[in-house]
Amino acid sequence: MQTVMFLNGPNANLYGLDPSGTYGSDSFPAIEAACHARAEELGFKLDFRQSNHEGVLIDWVQEARQSCAGLMINAAGLTYTSIALLDALLAFDGPILECHMSNIWKREPFRHQSYMSKAATGVIAGLGLQGYLLGLTAMRDLIADPAT
Amino acid sequence: MQTVMFLNGPNANLYGLDPSGTYGSDSFPAIEAACHARAEELGFKLDFRQSNHEGVLIDWVQEARQSCAGLMINAAGLTYTSIALLDALLAFDGPILECHMSNIWKREPFRHQSYMSKAATGVIAGLGLQGYLLGLTAMRDLIADPAT
Amino acid sequence: MQTVMFLNGPNANLYGLDPSGTYGSDSFPAIEAACHARAEELGFKLDFRQSNHEGVLIDWVQEARQSCAGLMINAAGLTYTSIALLDALLAFDGPILECHMSNIWKREPFRHQSYMSKAATGVIAGLGLQGYLLGLTAMRDLIADPAT
Amino acid sequence: MQTVMFLNGPNANLYGLDPSGTYGSDSFPAIEAACHARAEELGFKLDFRQSNHEGVLIDWVQEARQSCAGLMINAAGLTYTSIALLDALLAFDGPILECHMSNIWKREPFRHQSYMSKAATGVIAGLGLQGYLLGLTAMRDLIADPAT
Amino acid sequence: MQTVMFLNGPNANLYGLDPSGTYGSDSFPAIEAACHARAEELGFKLDFRQSNHEGVLIDWVQEARQSCAGLMINAAGLTYTSIALLDALLAFDGPILECHMSNIWKREPFRHQSYMSKAATGVIAGLGLQGYLLGLTAMRDLIADPAT
Amino acid sequence: MQTVMFLNGPNANLYGLDPSGTYGSDSFPAIEAACHARAEELGFKLDFRQSNHEGVLIDWVQEARQSCAGLMINAAGLTYTSIALLDALLAFDGPILECHMSNIWKREPFRHQSYMSKAATGVIAGLGLQGYLLGLTAMRDLIADPAT
Amino acid sequence: MQTVMFLNGPNANLYGLDPSGTYGSDSFPAIEAACHARAEELGFKLDFRQSNHEGVLIDWVQEARQSCAGLMINAAGLTYTSIALLDALLAFDGPILECHMSNIWKREPFRHQSYMSKAATGVIAGLGLQGYLLGLTAMRDLIADPAT
Amino acid sequence: MQTVMFLNGPNANLYGLDPSGTYGSDSFPAIEAACHARAEELGFKLDFRQSNHEGVLIDWVQEARQSCAGLMINAAGLTYTSIALLDALLAFDGPILECHMSNIWKREPFRHQSYMSKAATGVIAGLGLQGYLLGLTAMRDLIADPAT
Amino acid sequence: MQTVMFLNGPNANLYGLDPSGTYGSDSFPAIEAACHARAEELGFKLDFRQSNHEGVLIDWVQEARQSCAGLMINAAGLTYTSIALLDALLAFDGPILECHMSNIWKREPFRHQSYMSKAATGVIAGLGLQGYLLGLTAMRDLIADPAT
Amino acid sequence: MQTVMFLNGPNANLYGLDPSGTYGSDSFPAIEAACHARAEELGFKLDFRQSNHEGVLIDWVQEARQSCAGLMINAAGLTYTSIALLDALLAFDGPILECHMSNIWKREPFRHQSYMSKAATGVIAGLGLQGYLLGLTAMRDLIADPAT
Amino acid sequence: MQTVMFLNGPNANLYGLDPSGTYGSDSFPAIEAACHARAEELGFKLDFRQSNHEGVLIDWVQEARQSCAGLMINAAGLTYTSIALLDALLAFDGPILECHMSNIWKREPFRHQSYMSKAATGVIAGLGLQGYLLGLTAMRDLIADPAT
Amino acid sequence: MQTVMFLNGPNANLYGLDPSGTYGSDSFPAIEAACHARAEELGFKLDFRQSNHEGVLIDWVQEARQSCAGLMINAAGLTYTSIALLDALLAFDGPILECHMSNIWKREPFRHQSYMSKAATGVIAGLGLQGYLLGLTAMRDLIADPAT
Repeated sequence: MQTVMFLNGPNANLYGLDPSGTYGSDSFPAIEAACHARAEELGFKLDFRQSNHEGVLIDWVQEARQSCAGLMINAAGLTYTSIALLDALLAFDGPILECHMSNIWKREPFRHQSYMSKAATGVIAGLGLQGYLLGLTAMRDLIADPAT
Repeated sequence: MQTVMFLNGPNANLYGLDPSGTYGSDSFPAIEAACHARAEELGFKLDFRQSNHEGVLIDWVQEARQSCAGLMINAAGLTYTSIALLDALLAFDGPILECHMSNIWKREPFRHQSYMSKAATGVIAGLGLQGYLLGLTAMRDLIADPAT
Repeated sequence: MQTVMFLNGPNANLYGLDPSGTYGSDSFPAIEAACHARAEELGFKLDFRQSNHEGVLIDWVQEARQSCAGLMINAAGLTYTSIALLDALLAFDGPILECHMSNIWKREPFRHQSYMSKAATGVIAGLGLQGYLLGLTAMRDLIADPAT
Repeated sequence: MQTVMFLNGPNANLYGLDPSGTYGSDSFPAIEAACHARAEELGFKLDFRQSNHEGVLIDWVQEARQSCAGLMINAAGLTYTSIALLDALLAFDGPILECHMSNIWKREPFRHQSYMSKAATGVIAGLGLQGYLLGLTAMRDLIADPAT
Repeated sequence: MQTVMFLNGPNANLYGLDPSGTYGSDSFPAIEAACHARAEELGFKLDFRQSNHEGVLIDWVQEARQSCAGLMINAAGLTYTSIALLDALLAFDGPILECHMSNIWKREPFRHQSYMSKAATGVIAGLGLQGYLLGLTAMRDLIADPAT
Repeated sequence: MQTVMFLNGPNANLYGLDPSGTYGSDSFPAIEAACHARAEELGFKLDFRQSNHEGVLIDWVQEARQSCAGLMINAAGLTYTSIALLDALLAFDGPILECHMSNIWKREPFRHQSYMSKAATGVIAGLGLQGYLLGLTAMRDLIADPAT
Repeated sequence: MQTVMFLNGPNANLYGLDPSGTYGSDSFPAIEAACHARAEELGFKLDFRQSNHEGVLIDWVQEARQSCAGLMINAAGLTYTSIALLDALLAFDGPILECHMSNIWKREPFRHQSYMSKAATGVIAGLGLQGYLLGLTAMRDLIADPAT
Repeated sequence: MQTVMFLNGPNANLYGLDPSGTYGSDSFPAIEAACHARAEELGFKLDFRQSNHEGVLIDWVQEARQSCAGLMINAAGLTYTSIALLDALLAFDGPILECHMSNIWKREPFRHQSYMSKAATGVIAGLGLQGYLLGLTAMRDLIADPAT
Repeated sequence: MQTVMFLNGPNANLYGLDPSGTYGSDSFPAIEAACHARAEELGFKLDFRQSNHEGVLIDWVQEARQSCAGLMINAAGLTYTSIALLDALLAFDGPILECHMSNIWKREPFRHQSYMSKAATGVIAGLGLQGYLLGLTAMRDLIADPAT
Repeated sequence: MQTVMFLNGPNANLYGLDPSGTYGSDSFPAIEAACHARAEELGFKLDFRQSNHEGVLIDWVQEARQSCAGLMINAAGLTYTSIALLDALLAFDGPILECHMSNIWKREPFRHQSYMSKAATGVIAGLGLQGYLLGLTAMRDLIADPAT
Repeated sequence: MQTVMFLNGPNANLYGLDPSGTYGSDSFPAIEAACHARAEELGFKLDFRQSNHEGVLIDWVQEARQSCAGLMINAAGLTYTSIALLDALLAFDGPILECHMSNIWKREPFRHQSYMSKAATGVIAGLGLQGYLLGLTAMRDLIADPAT
Repeated sequence: MQTVMFLNGPNANLYGLDPSGTYGSDSFPAIEAACHARAEELGFKLDFRQSNHEGVLIDWVQEARQSCAGLMINAAGLTYTSIALLDALLAFDGPILECHMSNIWKREPFRHQSYMSKAATGVIAGLGLQGYLLGLTAMRDLIADPAT
């Protein structure tokens, strides 16, 4: 059974707690639970993690090189600034899916350029939890057929 | 039964014919057929169109205001240049999903800023035909629950 | 009796239908009717047209070279992007008046630079339908005294 | 009877004296007389002033807060540089009309961005004295119907 | 016998009618006739077309994929703005020659960057009708020896 | 007994009158009175002035060279544009405190770069009247110990 | 009794050790002691922390959401680069005061734009330890009257 | 006997008082006296003035239109920011000499672009009082032979 | 019999020796021979030169002022940097043809702006040796009819 | 015996594992061993460390202030983004040598500006492991003669 | 007797030959003769040279280090591009006067930034031959009193 | 026995003569002697040259194509401006080492981007003469093992 790591960046653990609703109304534990359920349906193991630390996220991407067939990542605020995280992704051989709860291109200009995209196979943004779940479906196909 | 319009911009009709494979190996008729099949499964009518003409695409977006619950759009080369098409989208009340076969942020710098994103609910890029089909699933939910 | 062509660009036909009211509350047919009435008072024939197609607008500017003493144009979303339309205007010998319903310089930065202005005799913006009607008055004087 | 203040910025008093004709052939006293005549026809009192001093113009905008229903302004060379004057305009509640004798967007690039436009209801440029007179007509409607 | 398509963009049909002489003194029909004569001498068929519509030009480039050995194009005002037309050219396998009547780099700064050049084999500019005729000669060699 | 000059730039006299509340709810006379009271407590004389005229502000900074131990300044709209006022500050030997009622970096981009900061010892912004009063306390220490 | 968290970013622990004196002559322990003394006078509890780790600072801002009425932050070198830290601040409901020992706008250009300012209520810079102490006074008022 | 006006901008009256010596060691009264002496030698009348007020400088340039054969100007801090002063200079028919005590291009980048230069016949900078005196000599020739 | 000078800039003497083939497969002596042969056919004398020295190229352009009816130039790496060479070309009265073996706009961004183009009558690029030969034909017409 | 700390940033631990070979073919343990051997030859102790955490690297630079005579650093992806790490280096008194396995100026543009260089004594890049070993030799001289 | 070297850059030898008159009507030999005459009057020896070669100009600046008390330079087209020439000037200890026949800031934007100014004591531009002669006078004072 | 050419650009011959010490205290002849001694130790012949002429340096790079196994270059002021010299380097097949006495990234911004780096195998900067000698060691390895 294949494993997919799903990395969540700084402050993602606050999703659903923000009264402005930028990141939707689902709490982070609810998001995690829904992702696990969907992965189970899709037939792969999900390793779902969150950290506010750039270094920890890089450690985890390196760990995934050994153990995971694919990588999903919402690098949150690091998306736009972390070349170090990009370098870790560039050293990962499998498919990478970049996800964002919100449509980052409708927000402030400093959120319009993602370093992660330079390593990602694909990007899904603005579709909230539904976007995460569809991303899991896409990942199942990507790891089934790595040539895609 | 609700209708969703899926607009394809300039040169999308050549998908699958490009030996470089930038846009995947599926031919445009095959893409259209797959999308129709998926929409049928999802329970809505798909109005799938392609044009090389900016004006025609704008006409169609305006037409969708009357007849369609949601809009999917791959504006292709117009994505980065057409404020007129953006204005048409801004005048559409329902959900809008921007799709790209390729990951546009891994390509030339002039493909890194999308005007369409300023009107889109969400964006899916880099996942080829699979991205289109997942987008249809996302659209079903968006038109079912317009408050999302 | 002299003729003035009044060209309206993409999505201008939706004016008055947008609940945000960016372009005022007058419907496009009402705008057209008011312009015709004013032109009649002012003593010239008005050829009022709208298209979502850049190419059609260029064809019409070329047609105006033969038949019209002056040109009024609200190029809408093409204002900021169409050098081709600018080139057509540059080849028109009579006075050109650029009009905008809204004050484009109070809106998004990508609406702050007009290519049309490089060919226009004058510009009126932000005054809604009243701005159009005053523009017709200005045009009457411009075609009466082409040396101005 | 309502009053409208019409403010003219630096060097406007030289209009008509410049042999290059950039600002038309009407002398400044002639412009003032024509504006007074038009305002009388339109049924409001015109308070027409000119200064080369940014500070005086700001004082006058502040004075207009007490006594005037609307403001017309050609800030001339300060148009492109004075945030202080913009701030004064932003603190004025009534309609503001920005006027320019010449089409500023056909001139040097440093005349292409107006700070005044960020506070103005509307803008008229490039129509010479006729533009001023039409502006007065527009102002009459704006002060009659402040909701516009 | 091979065919070469020669596409002319917006307002090219006005060449020779502009009193400023930017585009030379030859009328468009005269240009077309001269090109046909030269192509006949060179031994290939010329399919000479003009349109003010970006979409039509894209349709024609796609049509050329089936029928033409080479493509000559003066995209006129679209040269600097149309990524959609560039995409069509990128999907054309044969040699592409970009031509301009005028030396575009001596004109306004917004005419200094051509999107077409990113797909063109070669570029000829500033040599008027003579440049077109020499371009036809170059094209003959290019289609004779596609490896060049 | 030492004197500190507190200069207020264009439109500062309108503070508290702006219904948007950008600059707080305290009227300018109330601000002046509160500053005088605090200065008295702190044991120095306050010379509190306001002008809409850049030149007057420069004259006053020059006057302060003779008579004042320190300078507080809210240059308002001139903050971002006046190199002449900066030059006057650069020629003042004592400590300079730049104050802003609002947090200028949360406002429009053209308010994000202060010329005054290049001459100021310190900056306090976004704290309303409280920021002014704290600034007076800071100034007392700065003039007591000029070496700081 | 309310608590205020005071966060100090990378290298702040070296303050007073730098012979150039950019950050004043007070050692970091002395700064901490002075802040605690002042907070005690002002009647609130101060939770004073320092870390060289962006992730730790973000963790602490999140922790403050539960336990603190206000936040003071000198993000040091992260001020200009950390969108992730900005996002944490944006999710904090209480008042935020950004402090800097030095006047950052008199230093290198890469220190002139603070991401923290986009979330901060107010900013104090260039006043050394005195600026910190005044900031504590300001914070007392801000947490007493959250509507400010 | 011809008159030349010599205008000095903001803070020029402090020359020689600045211990850093940026503007040389000659006091402003000494500079004025030296210029008068030199003008007398050269056979023309010098009208030497200084103001910290942009508006006053503009008034004076306009006054010079009536009475002066040439204009010398050191606009000081307004050099880099005042389009209004530039416009006044552009309306002056005689020769204009721009002078600077210091070499402005060796100073901060915001002093590297002069608006005055766009109207000036010539520029002398970095030569201190000697540069002023040589400028007077140049002016004598310019007004003697206006065709130069 | 008229003479045309053909100047080749730095490293052009290596053409054909570069295994990457950027500049085609013809050796520089072969290029020179082909150009001489073509000029002979066309009825003018060709003065074909190459130098790696900017100064030598400028000397030669000045020499051509006396002896040559037209100038062909491939300034190679100096194309993008030498204002001094541009100035020499600007002082040459006859027609100037800028040639490049490769299509410089398909290469690195620092090769996209030519200073030479500001002085050139026309430009031919990307057509290899064939482009040179066609340029000679164009030159024959240009020197025959200098009014073109 | 003096100690030199050699800091390696994010993902440096993967050197030699990347099939593209950007960072050479030596594994990280092999690099470490070679550096230790060379340092021993050179007569100083090497403290060789690697971390993916910016904060840990800053902690280590601070630790080096107490214990090390010199610092070698390859900050990897943090090179281009971390002002916080730069600040730590700026507070280190001894010589600093910046090293990069690859020639960063031949790679993506976002790798062309190093913040580390603003604090470094010298830089060695593009020479792989050999560059590291030569850097150790350079460091021996720098710590032997700190005045260099 | 002191010597001053006067260096003239590329194409300066053509002065007076350009029918557009940008550089005045005096021929280069006439300029040289006038400068020699003036230097003789002023009591120093003038070493007047011209070259189209950047390297020769650098050689000459180096030569001047041994033999000359001061340097005058009109680097012509190299003014805006040659850091190598700037470096030579920076290594010259005496006063340096930068001269330009024309007012370079009224010309094309690429002539608005001089590298030479970063090393020059003073700059004189736009005064033609008269500017050169006044520069010689300035130089006499500068070499007489090197402390200025 | 292999030969390495070491090219020194403009003004390098003045090293050690500059009292500011930017380029160290070693004279150029001493640098040359030390390099020859080191090359002899390393077992290859060093061809050490210096020129102030860009063209001469290009000639020498071309000469090295025939005779040298590797190239060392300090292009000095040409580093940042000479695309022509870059092109010569790009046509050299062997290893290229770019050297700078000073750390160019700690100096003026116009010295932060090297064109030479785009062709260089590696770069050493800021280590003075020691950097040159280490570069010779690196070169020995590079020419011994060209595959590196």
